Amino acid sequence: MSDAKVRLYVEQPLGPGQPVPLTQDQAHYLFGVMRLARGAAVSLFNGRDGEWRAEVAEAGKRGGTLLCKDQTAPLRLPPDLWLLFAPIKKARTDFIVEKAAEMGAARILPVQTRFTNSERIRQDRLQAHAVEAAEQCGGTFVPEVADLTNLERLLADWPADRRIMWCDESLVGARAGLLEAAGGFEARGFEEGPKRPSPGPWAILIGPEGGFSEEEQARLRRMEQVVPVSLGPRILRADTAAVAALTLWQSVLGDWR
Amino acid sequence: MSDAKVRLYVEQPLGPGQPVPLTQDQAHYLFGVMRLARGAAVSLFNGRDGEWRAEVAEAGKRGGTLLCKDQTAPLRLPPDLWLLFAPIKKARTDFIVEKAAEMGAARILPVQTRFTNSERIRQDRLQAHAVEAAEQCGGTFVPEVADLTNLERLLADWPADRRIMWCDESLVGARAGLLEAAGGFEARGFEEGPKRPSPGPWAILIGPEGGFSEEEQARLRRMEQVVPVSLGPRILRADTAAVAALTLWQSVLGDWR
Repeated sequence: MSDAKVRLYVEQPLGPGQPVPLTQDQAHYLFGVMRLARGAAVSLFNGRDGEWRAEVAEAGKRGGTLLCKDQTAPLRLPPDLWLLFAPIKKARTDFIVEKAAEMGAARILPVQTRFTNSERIRQDRLQAHAVEAAEQCGGTFVPEVADLTNLERLLADWPADRRIMWCDESLVGARAGLLEAAGGFEARGFEEGPKRPSPGPWAILIGPEGGFSEEEQARLRRMEQVVPVSLGPRILRADTAAVAALTLWQSVLGDWR
Repeated sequence: MSDAKVRLYVEQPLGPGQPVPLTQDQAHYLFGVMRLARGAAVSLFNGRDGEWRAEVAEAGKRGGTLLCKDQTAPLRLPPDLWLLFAPIKKARTDFIVEKAAEMGAARILPVQTRFTNSERIRQDRLQAHAVEAAEQCGGTFVPEVADLTNLERLLADWPADRRIMWCDESLVGARAGLLEAAGGFEARGFEEGPKRPSPGPWAILIGPEGGFSEEEQARLRRMEQVVPVSLGPRILRADTAAVAALTLWQSVLGDWR
């Protein structure tokens, strides 16, 4: 950890002595909003080079430069986990992206399903939410937010080795756990013990309000990669389901173990 | 399930043939907003008598009456789990209450800690959020939202038999799992198997931004009921931590098993 009060995502490479020129927005935030002066410490990460302590070398109204000093944390990649979800109301979609970044998803894919209300998303705005979440939660990695993709097309080209944890509304109340369903993994996610092998590529699929269409359900059930999982006996809103599914996956198969 | 398009929480008793008079707000919602007419079905629950199918018997601008027909779901109580959290910004506090109701907390207690920003809460507004969440998620139970209580006072009278899953920021990245920490429960929360005994009274404690003070931490560590639990290697916002902790608890000890 660094003594910096501000954590900032930048796109430039980070390394010892590396100067980091600031955009106008960044300069406004650091010098106008946060009132940092020359010599003040800032924590930087770019999603590739870990976290670095930098100092303000030049501060201006429209720009400025930081100077990278020491690495304060190595790059920490999340497991190879994608989150697929059907965009819902704006605030809840923002929330899902923020939470997925906090919870350690590697890639976030908004998908268009039969019952998805949303025709389009603002990919740039969602990506900015992912950046902000990483800044806040001390992450050194920012998940990519993909453009809205049609679920059917996505599944048509689905990689053979990427399993899908399908959070299926029809399983509400059923006894379908992640572990028994995934098979091959021992159901002892929380025990102290030797590090188990990486679970390999996975995705979590969360449905829209109203669930999946019958065709979509049948399609998913036919896919060998798909692991239907219940999220308990209550119906969860999509945003709750996303956080709950990420928690289950991370605690059983991911980097919470 | 009922054919009703609307689920409504009411305070009156529910039973066969039971008339349910409506408040002005409820009448406005059912007849003004949702445009229900005489004979239309409404799903009712009151937190005590399960879910009932009722029909509109009288519809007026300022009131009306529903008539209870058949029970469509029994009362389903959540496990004896409290959620203690330090209120944060308004939107995130609302969110925590909504999620706690969805995830099956039995009681929600906003607590004032050393580093809690909030001096007061609107208990009535938070309770309304819990009701709305239960209406949306098909619950038949509504958790009580308590008034803001001082954590120190709460802990001074803490019941000897109620364990506290303490989500401790200082454990970020440590290997402290719920199961190994709780002890006595086998770490196989997701396996098919005979129903295990109820875990007894529990509470989840989520800290404010900035965490707990040193005095609070020392106090919690001294309590026999306290089980410190890590929520993975990333720092989570309080609202994320609440959903993640509820997921862990429900899947390992609660009614997701």
